[in-house]
Amino acid sequence: MDREGPGAPLERHVLKTRLFQPGPVPVPDRVRLAMAQALPHHRTAAFQPTFEACRLGLKRVFQTDQPVVMLASTGTGGMDAAVSNLLSPGDHALVIRGGKFGERWAEICARYDVRTTCIDVEWGSGADPQAVKAALDANPDIRAVYLQASETSTGASHPVREIADLVHRRDDCVIVVDGITAVGVYDLPMDKWGLDVVVSGSQKSFMLPPGLAFVALSERAQRFMKEARCPRFYFDLAGELGVIEGNQSAWTPAISLLMGLEESLKIILDEEGLEGTWARTEQIAHATREAMRAIGLDLVAPDSPSAALTAVFVPDGIEGPKLRAYLRDELGINVAEGQGKFKGKIFRIAHLGYYDRFDAITAVAAVEMALSALGFSGKTGEGVVKATELLRG
Amino acid sequence: MDREGPGAPLERHVLKTRLFQPGPVPVPDRVRLAMAQALPHHRTAAFQPTFEACRLGLKRVFQTDQPVVMLASTGTGGMDAAVSNLLSPGDHALVIRGGKFGERWAEICARYDVRTTCIDVEWGSGADPQAVKAALDANPDIRAVYLQASETSTGASHPVREIADLVHRRDDCVIVVDGITAVGVYDLPMDKWGLDVVVSGSQKSFMLPPGLAFVALSERAQRFMKEARCPRFYFDLAGELGVIEGNQSAWTPAISLLMGLEESLKIILDEEGLEGTWARTEQIAHATREAMRAIGLDLVAPDSPSAALTAVFVPDGIEGPKLRAYLRDELGINVAEGQGKFKGKIFRIAHLGYYDRFDAITAVAAVEMALSALGFSGKTGEGVVKATELLRG
Repeated sequence: MDREGPGAPLERHVLKTRLFQPGPVPVPDRVRLAMAQALPHHRTAAFQPTFEACRLGLKRVFQTDQPVVMLASTGTGGMDAAVSNLLSPGDHALVIRGGKFGERWAEICARYDVRTTCIDVEWGSGADPQAVKAALDANPDIRAVYLQASETSTGASHPVREIADLVHRRDDCVIVVDGITAVGVYDLPMDKWGLDVVVSGSQKSFMLPPGLAFVALSERAQRFMKEARCPRFYFDLAGELGVIEGNQSAWTPAISLLMGLEESLKIILDEEGLEGTWARTEQIAHATREAMRAIGLDLVAPDSPSAALTAVFVPDGIEGPKLRAYLRDELGINVAEGQGKFKGKIFRIAHLGYYDRFDAITAVAAVEMALSALGFSGKTGEGVVKATELLRG
Repeated sequence: MDREGPGAPLERHVLKTRLFQPGPVPVPDRVRLAMAQALPHHRTAAFQPTFEACRLGLKRVFQTDQPVVMLASTGTGGMDAAVSNLLSPGDHALVIRGGKFGERWAEICARYDVRTTCIDVEWGSGADPQAVKAALDANPDIRAVYLQASETSTGASHPVREIADLVHRRDDCVIVVDGITAVGVYDLPMDKWGLDVVVSGSQKSFMLPPGLAFVALSERAQRFMKEARCPRFYFDLAGELGVIEGNQSAWTPAISLLMGLEESLKIILDEEGLEGTWARTEQIAHATREAMRAIGLDLVAPDSPSAALTAVFVPDGIEGPKLRAYLRDELGINVAEGQGKFKGKIFRIAHLGYYDRFDAITAVAAVEMALSALGFSGKTGEGVVKATELLRG
């Protein structure tokens, strides 16, 4: 595209790139500078305070007294570990499948010869606890229930607490929660709700580059690990649990990312506070949802939205890829596209992590400008008015 | 330790910490600054040049036309993948076991129910190709031979080329090389020698923090992958191979580390040149070995030394832990300790990666100062003379 001439954008020489995808999210300068320090060796005393700050800080973010293992992998590696460490080939698992990441649980189980019963939830909806109850009642051999807290492909959240209560009517079943875009985003109290495994990753609410997975394990999950016969080596969590209290990892840790995590946990826990982080994220999410409604757009998950991100249907008469391209090339605004069956049909705006009110207003204003430029017949301008009103403070 | 008073070291207020362990090695400032830049999203055009530079640059460092997969994990994850992607439960593998990392190959195979025949090599020695030939002849069902190029726990190198020639007398067998401390350290031409899988990691010759594994795969290895039934999901290399030519990874890549890799590959390939890197490393390694001999110390791998590091026996009358503690606490010099059966008995000085002649002289001088302080009865001073003489240029 010729970016000079009368039709070129105002900022053509200084176009700022802004990421609004649900991971990787922007990394604060101070976190990037923390990661740019000279590396200590991981088996020396110099690194122990960093490891310990991460180990203890993660427990607070996960709201658990149980260990939270840090793995050098992305969140998908943590999901893999949450299957191979808990189950044996032939075991029966229940999977809540309401988007691309629900599908991923089923795929991982299939790779390990774990039998699955899947509850297919309409994309954009939250799971119905009654369907979970019926599946558990009909299949007494189900040993684990896998679900997302926040389904990143649709922006919907599932009723984790209610499902956990159902799972815990049985002693021989664990609930495993993909909290990759939920932990640190909104209240998901692992111990209080009795969640057995909660997985997350660095490039979400933790405001870090990708490369770290976190896996928190209840005592029940740790018991399951002793029986589980799916093969694993790199992701063998028993090896990690054996050394974590001594501030060590079984393999070499991703040292620079842990140096960044120490810094980002200071922001989350000591400065803003976990409740403050949740409140900020929720306020931005709420304002964005209401702004999209004010423009007349339809939300993908109107009834059970996750505060992590807002997914929005591309309106009739507008082509999804053109909308994303305009936002990206003309305005420097990167929103996420739809995945799987939603490809080309929706766009997604992230709220989790390092975002403030003006980022949200920017995203809304950009969507309005792009829609307007592409011939959207609805009303624009209402969105940014609504967002500003709701974010006045 | 009270670091003030007459016995305190000269540098007590500005003690510089120097890492001489074989990974993580020091990261050049320009590489750390590259990683400190704002992150692009990995599915955008902005990131493609970085991914492509890494993808193509790695082929040159591995000396292969075959794909080199980049995984968000440490090198051990790459080793795990090199078993689970090539073999099926019940398959038979030959493992060269001459140190802690040889043992690791056998442990990984055991986890996946791969049967192993192990050739136990005295720690510090290189494997005898005749023993490999005998084992292959006696076991016609061996499908894969696993070994280290450079055994980091002893500082010994194995005769990879000779063993590759033996393996390739058969069509149905692959050779899998842990090149974690060999790739980019010395000449290990994958295609020319017909190596089927070569594994490496970021925190070695690539001068990066830990968190990236590299796995290069020959056509034969890629054929084996199609038959291999060991379960894998996160480490499924077929998923990576399916998208790598389009400059994508199956899962989210460790973006910041790839930004650093792009920069470090510029140093290795465009500035120093691969041969220059090998020559620098070898000269430093040679000088260090000769300096240790000049002090009267015994090398762990005198006959088949790897240029990656030099392992040295702690002399009689000196306690290994005290030597390492003095080096670390009084002099700021971090050498690696012995692992496994060598714990407390040896120390190891790294040469691979971002080291120059004065680093080597520093390491030698520090060892002499520490030995002298701890009452070593041998001659000191000869080491630094020898190193300086050999590194005069």
